[in-house]
Amino acid sequence: MIVEKPTILICNDDGVNAPGLRYLIETVSEFGNVIAVAPADHRSGQSSAITIGEPLRIVRHADIGKAEVYSVSGTPVDCIKLALHTIVAGRKISLMLSGINHGSNAGNCVVYSGTMGAAMEACMQGIPSIGYSLLNHSWEADFSQCAPFVKEITAAVLKKGLPHNVCLNVNIPAHCTPKGLKVVDASEGFWTEEYVEYKDPQGVPFYMLSGRYVDKNPEADNTDSYWLDRQFVTVVPVTVNPTASDKIPIVRQILEK
Amino acid sequence: MIVEKPTILICNDDGVNAPGLRYLIETVSEFGNVIAVAPADHRSGQSSAITIGEPLRIVRHADIGKAEVYSVSGTPVDCIKLALHTIVAGRKISLMLSGINHGSNAGNCVVYSGTMGAAMEACMQGIPSIGYSLLNHSWEADFSQCAPFVKEITAAVLKKGLPHNVCLNVNIPAHCTPKGLKVVDASEGFWTEEYVEYKDPQGVPFYMLSGRYVDKNPEADNTDSYWLDRQFVTVVPVTVNPTASDKIPIVRQILEK
Repeated sequence: MIVEKPTILICNDDGVNAPGLRYLIETVSEFGNVIAVAPADHRSGQSSAITIGEPLRIVRHADIGKAEVYSVSGTPVDCIKLALHTIVAGRKISLMLSGINHGSNAGNCVVYSGTMGAAMEACMQGIPSIGYSLLNHSWEADFSQCAPFVKEITAAVLKKGLPHNVCLNVNIPAHCTPKGLKVVDASEGFWTEEYVEYKDPQGVPFYMLSGRYVDKNPEADNTDSYWLDRQFVTVVPVTVNPTASDKIPIVRQILEK
Repeated sequence: MIVEKPTILICNDDGVNAPGLRYLIETVSEFGNVIAVAPADHRSGQSSAITIGEPLRIVRHADIGKAEVYSVSGTPVDCIKLALHTIVAGRKISLMLSGINHGSNAGNCVVYSGTMGAAMEACMQGIPSIGYSLLNHSWEADFSQCAPFVKEITAAVLKKGLPHNVCLNVNIPAHCTPKGLKVVDASEGFWTEEYVEYKDPQGVPFYMLSGRYVDKNPEADNTDSYWLDRQFVTVVPVTVNPTASDKIPIVRQILEK
């Protein structure tokens, strides 16, 4: 019996040249045939944005090991949609992996994350999907502690799948050997000092996003932020259907005349 | 006793010059002091994208009635974040409204919608928020059937608020007098024929997003798509926390060695 190797689609939001993408490709190549389709440039914070009314182009890059590598001139979600329509059209994709992101996607960051945007898009298209992030923004980040966890989680999901409409948001602490793995809720937080104001050469103000994430409940021991602080890898199940069905009765009451 | 009028913040994703924005401002001005802060240009499909590493500028536009109108050179979420940091900093915002969008945000569209991205951002910041969309993409769309429903829903939410972390996604059928209002789930669907392939003058292919939404369960009578087809206004409660907490036990099982 010939068992065909599974096909694994990889994307990210830091762009096709990001060291984290290369590291992920090399780490999971043993599990299947890897095809990477990533944004041509840096697309952090793109959430589930799609490009409407503008042309998208596909470029083939040098292989990484045996993995084919392509870039798309759009967002992470554009990469997934266009890859499924063209590059891997008609092929069964067994798994979609996103990352490894240079920086945290814990807590509320998941809402803005292009890394998770790509994973959520693949999930909506019925593909088991995982976003991986390392809590280090540096382009020179050391990813070496990620491999055992990435391999363990990837192998388990490849073997057992994931629930309908649910993908995984995996965050990995930096500058340490993680102590283990926790499946938990996302922390709920907010940002302070969100913008820095500048004056341009004409004296007109402009603003750039900055901000510091503040966990609302730092002592709650069921959140990703809590366990990342304590050097654990965290796994948060993320739904791609944001309908709050359980709130339908109360919204009906609110709207009653 | 002097009762201060509530302050209502308005945004959209079609841009500051969209007729739907003007219509919304005019429709709800009776309920409070309206301040509109909208993208300088068209930002449809921007989801919860944020601008990182690029300057954002604010421009004041002509008032609409008594409403102050501003544009921000970014995404819908940028508009909300920057408005709260600058234009309305320190003011209590009683309500945030987004739209009226030129086009549907029913079913899975909510994931990509910039209209809902703005509403979800305000919701995360503790402001009761509603996204309004008319099922007509045209810039010349007739919004006149929207007013009674927009007023009814806006007044109810202004009076009674919304549950924690939940905002509303309201869709209004086009070319009819709606028969009533239904609070329901989002339909689950997918897109076919997602891209059109072109050849540029050099013969190199490029792609543009197209697509037709297909409801997976068109006969399910608990979805927005079902009731919009039958000329009802639909209200879907949307959570801003995508954690699938109920799936934590099964994900733990999947990842067990």
